[in-house]
Amino acid sequence: MIYNDLIKQVAFIKEIDKLKYIVRKTKLFNSDRNENDAEHSWHLAMMSIVLASHSDKPIDVLKVLKMVLIHDIVEIDAGDTFIYDTTKSHTNTEEELIAAKRIFGLLPASQAEEFIEIWKEFEDGITNEAKFARSMDRLEPLLQNTSNNGGTWAEFNVPYQKVYDKKKVIKNGSSVIWAYAENLINESVEKGILKKE
Amino acid sequence: MIYNDLIKQVAFIKEIDKLKYIVRKTKLFNSDRNENDAEHSWHLAMMSIVLASHSDKPIDVLKVLKMVLIHDIVEIDAGDTFIYDTTKSHTNTEEELIAAKRIFGLLPASQAEEFIEIWKEFEDGITNEAKFARSMDRLEPLLQNTSNNGGTWAEFNVPYQKVYDKKKVIKNGSSVIWAYAENLINESVEKGILKKE
Repeated sequence: MIYNDLIKQVAFIKEIDKLKYIVRKTKLFNSDRNENDAEHSWHLAMMSIVLASHSDKPIDVLKVLKMVLIHDIVEIDAGDTFIYDTTKSHTNTEEELIAAKRIFGLLPASQAEEFIEIWKEFEDGITNEAKFARSMDRLEPLLQNTSNNGGTWAEFNVPYQKVYDKKKVIKNGSSVIWAYAENLINESVEKGILKKE
Repeated sequence: MIYNDLIKQVAFIKEIDKLKYIVRKTKLFNSDRNENDAEHSWHLAMMSIVLASHSDKPIDVLKVLKMVLIHDIVEIDAGDTFIYDTTKSHTNTEEELIAAKRIFGLLPASQAEEFIEIWKEFEDGITNEAKFARSMDRLEPLLQNTSNNGGTWAEFNVPYQKVYDKKKVIKNGSSVIWAYAENLINESVEKGILKKE
């Protein structure tokens, strides 16, 4: 039984290797090389450990880590959706739910259920852990774009207000990190790497 | 003070982006594309979550995750050392310790100290968490090489006994995972993708 579980878990471990091929729009720091979802997920996990004490509410860091490590796995089937693409819905699409069921469904049943629940909790963004995890997910590309002369904002002509509206969810996780992020956004406008319409 | 800590933490978060450029000898699954250290670290974190219940001893999964997420960060300065390279020492080299002090030293002092301790604990391999984390670090390339027709074993002519000796530390973390791993190694010999001398 335990050995049967292990066989299923190894199948899952092999399948999620595909996350390394899912390319994001954002580039690495001071770079023109696109980031992939596995690198992004690792970076969010590191950020979560390093910045956990700035959460406004008490959080279970292990839960946050599980969230950020798995949050993009559905993109193996559903693909990466650019946050400023207004033609697509960004959360809980039918396609992503089908992907979650297929990929996490490779695991033993109780584990599959646990992973799907954690993924949904992240998507819903209601619990303290989900709020903090989502603030990490918004902070990383902000840091990348400001290090890349505007990065995707410049590349796709994303104006200040759209950036501000997407980034302000950082405030739901941490008021200190939001103060820092808001300052970075304002500096970007002053530097001319983010334009007001 | 909190804001000063945050400034230091962001400097660290930017610095560790360099882990995405450290290329390993092993290739992705069923692939000829080399894996980088950030992808590898993400994969070990996922494996640790999925396989934690197979640990022979009770483990603090959060501690294991911290270990596998940070274990290769020293390679930003010290570079990747191939496990079957007999010309270099593989653990606790002076170069890696200097790297740990410089890179983790970007963090606020108490956090820097915590990270250096976790990295040392992983390297020493004595605690239950370190044993399990190290078994994950040995398992991933085993799964990759068997999916790649021998992978680095074939590429660098590594014989069975060397592979077996390196892999048997998996047993220190989990007897069930070791049973699975030992079977994979034996199958590799039968298939001719791993040679006995």
